[in-house]
Amino acid sequence: MGEFEVIQRYFANSGRARTDTLLGVGDDGAVLQLRDGYDLVVTTDTMVAGTHFFPDVDPRALGHKLVAVNISDLAAMGAEPAWLSLAMTLPKVDDAWLAAFAAAFSETADYYDCQLVGGDTTRGPMTFTVVAKGQVPHGKMLTRQGAKVGDFIYVTGTLGDAGLGLRLCQGQVEVSKKHRAHILQRFHYPTARLAIGQALRTVASSAMDLSDGLYSDIQHLMHRSVVGASLDVERLPLSQALKDSCDRSTALALALSGGEDYELLFTVPESKKSMLDVLLAPYGVPVTCIGRITGAAGKLELRAGNEAFAYEHRGFEHFEK
Amino acid sequence: MGEFEVIQRYFANSGRARTDTLLGVGDDGAVLQLRDGYDLVVTTDTMVAGTHFFPDVDPRALGHKLVAVNISDLAAMGAEPAWLSLAMTLPKVDDAWLAAFAAAFSETADYYDCQLVGGDTTRGPMTFTVVAKGQVPHGKMLTRQGAKVGDFIYVTGTLGDAGLGLRLCQGQVEVSKKHRAHILQRFHYPTARLAIGQALRTVASSAMDLSDGLYSDIQHLMHRSVVGASLDVERLPLSQALKDSCDRSTALALALSGGEDYELLFTVPESKKSMLDVLLAPYGVPVTCIGRITGAAGKLELRAGNEAFAYEHRGFEHFEK
Repeated sequence: MGEFEVIQRYFANSGRARTDTLLGVGDDGAVLQLRDGYDLVVTTDTMVAGTHFFPDVDPRALGHKLVAVNISDLAAMGAEPAWLSLAMTLPKVDDAWLAAFAAAFSETADYYDCQLVGGDTTRGPMTFTVVAKGQVPHGKMLTRQGAKVGDFIYVTGTLGDAGLGLRLCQGQVEVSKKHRAHILQRFHYPTARLAIGQALRTVASSAMDLSDGLYSDIQHLMHRSVVGASLDVERLPLSQALKDSCDRSTALALALSGGEDYELLFTVPESKKSMLDVLLAPYGVPVTCIGRITGAAGKLELRAGNEAFAYEHRGFEHFEK
Repeated sequence: MGEFEVIQRYFANSGRARTDTLLGVGDDGAVLQLRDGYDLVVTTDTMVAGTHFFPDVDPRALGHKLVAVNISDLAAMGAEPAWLSLAMTLPKVDDAWLAAFAAAFSETADYYDCQLVGGDTTRGPMTFTVVAKGQVPHGKMLTRQGAKVGDFIYVTGTLGDAGLGLRLCQGQVEVSKKHRAHILQRFHYPTARLAIGQALRTVASSAMDLSDGLYSDIQHLMHRSVVGASLDVERLPLSQALKDSCDRSTALALALSGGEDYELLFTVPESKKSMLDVLLAPYGVPVTCIGRITGAAGKLELRAGNEAFAYEHRGFEHFEK
């Protein structure tokens, strides 16, 4: 089993055929042509069986998610996705499994206008690394560094659904038939907030995507921007499915620490706040103001309305005990 | 153990600080500025413990090799290296091991003018994926596709030393004290033929690097160029160390199938053959003509001088039985 055989057999025409791909799969490397005046944006994500996904995961869900979570990183930077590389480590070649995985990977890549341009296949414990490459107009990228005191903090979509979905798959919680499909969809098939990321280039002072959970992730943003943050947990956007499936305290814990939301967290200066609703209206994805940036560098303050909110964070521990 | 901690602690200033790195480690992705008129070249290589390296490998050798083999792919395309991403899957955080690994990785990156700009750290069986990014003047990349009937086939350096080094480490062969260091150096610390790759842009019709061994690799080039090849095994460049360490038949088998040479294999049209020696003289690396491209697409002919050479290829099976 060499790179040549597996990548050629399952991924030779994976994703969108792009005219700016000068050389794709099958050589020592890919050759890619950037648009004039654009910078390259590169993100890397690894998923390990047993840590990031169940070893018996549906290969279609895995193929989708590997692409979507990488594209989510590009979205958080305001970039337009273009190319993917896939490094697969597999214990054996299972034709049916690989065909289903490749079909979902390719379909999702195509959805996001991405082409698979290379990779490597090796034998060993099941591990996937995707490197996504995109383009952003020179100087217009969104980063974690630009949040300023007084900026408003926003998130897209709803939080905690994927965390609930994980615990549903683990048999730790029950979810009514009415909400099951939605919750599993949110866990297995996340959507990268790509159009919103690009729209935010002109208004957001900082942005990142939520992968570990709001409580952890906002601290990375605070660290890079050298600021603090105050969040009102009563404003956290929770889906009806989440609210119907658990008590308030569990719902908030999932929204804060459940992880895998793949929503965008971003900050907007007061001067640009009024533009936001108009700008984002076409995308049909709710955005919610959940707090403000403070000058207390490194300090995360949680409130419930006007009260302090006591919260004991338990990190996102993947599938470990 | 999150990406944040491990990458920041050990790799925050890894490699050369490049002015065209607009955003490096620590955000959702890196932002990189390509030179005007250049295309992006991207290569991916994964190494798995037990398959590609011994689990008890010296972390300095591993750190070096991970960088060098990826740069070797860029060299084969005539590209100038610029940036690296590193995805590490580790069973645990071993400070001393990581410090030694990171030091060698960073030193080798620096040697090749590369900056580490991102990555991911996950928990699981030890696996490393490096994505190397470089630049090549628009339209000037070397590929496996351009070999034409009658072109001369060349390799850089000597073949089979790394294959011997692997078998030495496995205790399968003996190597005299005089040659031991050289052979182990060739196996553990390969050198990417970067300057030669760039020099070849104007004369080579095709190029690739030798990772699996000449016998396998040339067939990838033949496949992509839709040609055949005739090689004279008497012309294969063998080091004195290899010749002194085994009989002729073993030496040729290592040169043909030993793998991990990380030398360049390239073809040159007859019209440009005379330029080659002059062009490559400054680099002090021998290049040897070992055969010619033929019109018998897919057919690899081995000769020993004027005689047919019977050879039973056994593929490069990494560390497996």
